[in-house]
Amino acid sequence: MQDLVERTIAAIRPLDRRAMEAARARQPQLTKPWGSLGRLEELATQIAGITGQPMPRLGARAVITCAGDHGVVAEGVSMFGPETTPAMVRNFLAGGAGINVLARLVGADVIVLDVGVAAELPPHPKLISRKIGWGTGNIVHGPAMTREQAWAAIAAGVEAATHVIEGGSTLLGTGDMGIANTTPSSAMVAAFTGEPPARVTGRGSGIDDATLARKIAVVERALAVNQPDPADPIDVVAKVGGFEIAAIAGLCLAGAARRVPVVLDGFIAGAGALLAARLAPAVIPYLIAGHASVEIGHRVVLRELGLQPLITLDLRLGEGTGAALAMHVVEAACRILVEMNTWQGANVAGPLVADDDALTA
Amino acid sequence: MQDLVERTIAAIRPLDRRAMEAARARQPQLTKPWGSLGRLEELATQIAGITGQPMPRLGARAVITCAGDHGVVAEGVSMFGPETTPAMVRNFLAGGAGINVLARLVGADVIVLDVGVAAELPPHPKLISRKIGWGTGNIVHGPAMTREQAWAAIAAGVEAATHVIEGGSTLLGTGDMGIANTTPSSAMVAAFTGEPPARVTGRGSGIDDATLARKIAVVERALAVNQPDPADPIDVVAKVGGFEIAAIAGLCLAGAARRVPVVLDGFIAGAGALLAARLAPAVIPYLIAGHASVEIGHRVVLRELGLQPLITLDLRLGEGTGAALAMHVVEAACRILVEMNTWQGANVAGPLVADDDALTA
Repeated sequence: MQDLVERTIAAIRPLDRRAMEAARARQPQLTKPWGSLGRLEELATQIAGITGQPMPRLGARAVITCAGDHGVVAEGVSMFGPETTPAMVRNFLAGGAGINVLARLVGADVIVLDVGVAAELPPHPKLISRKIGWGTGNIVHGPAMTREQAWAAIAAGVEAATHVIEGGSTLLGTGDMGIANTTPSSAMVAAFTGEPPARVTGRGSGIDDATLARKIAVVERALAVNQPDPADPIDVVAKVGGFEIAAIAGLCLAGAARRVPVVLDGFIAGAGALLAARLAPAVIPYLIAGHASVEIGHRVVLRELGLQPLITLDLRLGEGTGAALAMHVVEAACRILVEMNTWQGANVAGPLVADDDALTA
Repeated sequence: MQDLVERTIAAIRPLDRRAMEAARARQPQLTKPWGSLGRLEELATQIAGITGQPMPRLGARAVITCAGDHGVVAEGVSMFGPETTPAMVRNFLAGGAGINVLARLVGADVIVLDVGVAAELPPHPKLISRKIGWGTGNIVHGPAMTREQAWAAIAAGVEAATHVIEGGSTLLGTGDMGIANTTPSSAMVAAFTGEPPARVTGRGSGIDDATLARKIAVVERALAVNQPDPADPIDVVAKVGGFEIAAIAGLCLAGAARRVPVVLDGFIAGAGALLAARLAPAVIPYLIAGHASVEIGHRVVLRELGLQPLITLDLRLGEGTGAALAMHVVEAACRILVEMNTWQGANVAGPLVADDDALTA
């Protein structure tokens, strides 16, 4: 397991500078004022660099929603009971959840990766079963999982993403399902960044003030009891993380290794991406922050990764919904580069003043 | 002309409160934590209120790109020459511009409404020819147009939108094309809001500091020479506006009168929407701010209209590009409401704590 992850990390290369330069050089030739499509232009350059194609065309795409349960749910940190995790997985497989609706709208498949749901899930064509455990241990009493389990959960993410990419996906979105999973995400982000738990712990599914205070105390206890070592990413995820969060890190690493852009969802995805980035900083240029979550710890994650979100619509659902919504923006950026006319092609006079900086930037 | 516009205004009704309440009441029944889709939930409620459908389903859609030229281009306020306006119209009709790419991606038709291009444009199935003049007068020397022309340009927008809606469109986007049109837009916004020209005049197509200083002075002179009366919206648009900006106001009014949501593009659309709102404040609830433009005056417009943009990607292209991109978000909001499973339908246990406020809000 560790070996697969390490091989995946070793396969990550820098972005393709030539493709990026070609993409960047094409923008001023398109029939629009220089720079007038703002972040769509930067995004198209990034996708060119990721894919190695100066004119990137995206085809099939998928959101991989990683699912797992959490022992810490016993501490009363969520609005929902643990039975909701498998019930929502069934909802995903039936096509009726938020992620299904938003994924359909961008033509993305929804694949569920079970790495730790505390229930038997019957086989389904859209379900990848790689259960590492029936939920994690309760992090206020001890570690969430063993180091071996952490590597195995990351490896499950790598394998799922690789399977989906080999099936033709050219764009990946990350999703999560796991009642109580903002709690380990907050613990991981606090451990990695040194931020106090109160600065990275939010209302998750919509808890009230009293529950939020309890949740912050739970994160503090989890850190005090487990003493995760921020310099050892596997120690952090094993002690205070979650199976599906580790799997999300695997999705990021596999996307990067295969030169497929990975659109992150919100806070839980961010915790997984932060784990991936601590294992392999070279993964970061392959990541796209789909949206800015309401969850307060998300801004810490984005700052830490140096990512700017594409969409800010006060979402906090998870499942991959923000990633699916943002796939439209990613597609738009690529289509602009590929489909727009050039000044020459359209036989339109360009700007009156030659701007050498813009042409050569 | 005036009569058509006045009848359109008289036909605007308040949003449908019952449809809005039904839409709002459905959100907590859907399989997601209450409020977890943030602004998508508010947006679905707004669309329900606009259309009168508690479960709104959007069908065909169109961006109407209003085109016109501006005498003030002679003052050297743009990066482009006036020959670019008809050239870009031809580009729109050939399907090669930014708006074509982004409209295709959301299944929207692109219709060009010529209300004042200073060139002969051959007939085309996607071109509505309603030329009020060959460009406006230069606003630093006198009025842009007569009051009759202003009414006629608004009426042309009303008629184009009505035509498109009668052809089946259920969602409208506003677009603009007109070299130098940020200059009259800034003059209109300054006149309507009392903001000093420097606070509402930006770099448009990407002008440098010296040109920006000249442009601000041009707006100041236009206001000093024409003395538009902010209490008389037709006086403002006739003296310092533009044909296509007036037409955009007509699109807004006709959409509202026909209960079709109108997605605004950026700053020029905002100037048109502000004109519409000054003629008929009841239009505002029918408007959706597609995006936040880089153009500095746009934030003043949005504040004045009380609208919050859906997307912030540093766009400043115009044509309707921000509106087209935002149509995906509008569609997503409606699909969530219509397509998601309910807790009962999915046989999933809902939140542990009953939240009566959320259920009855």
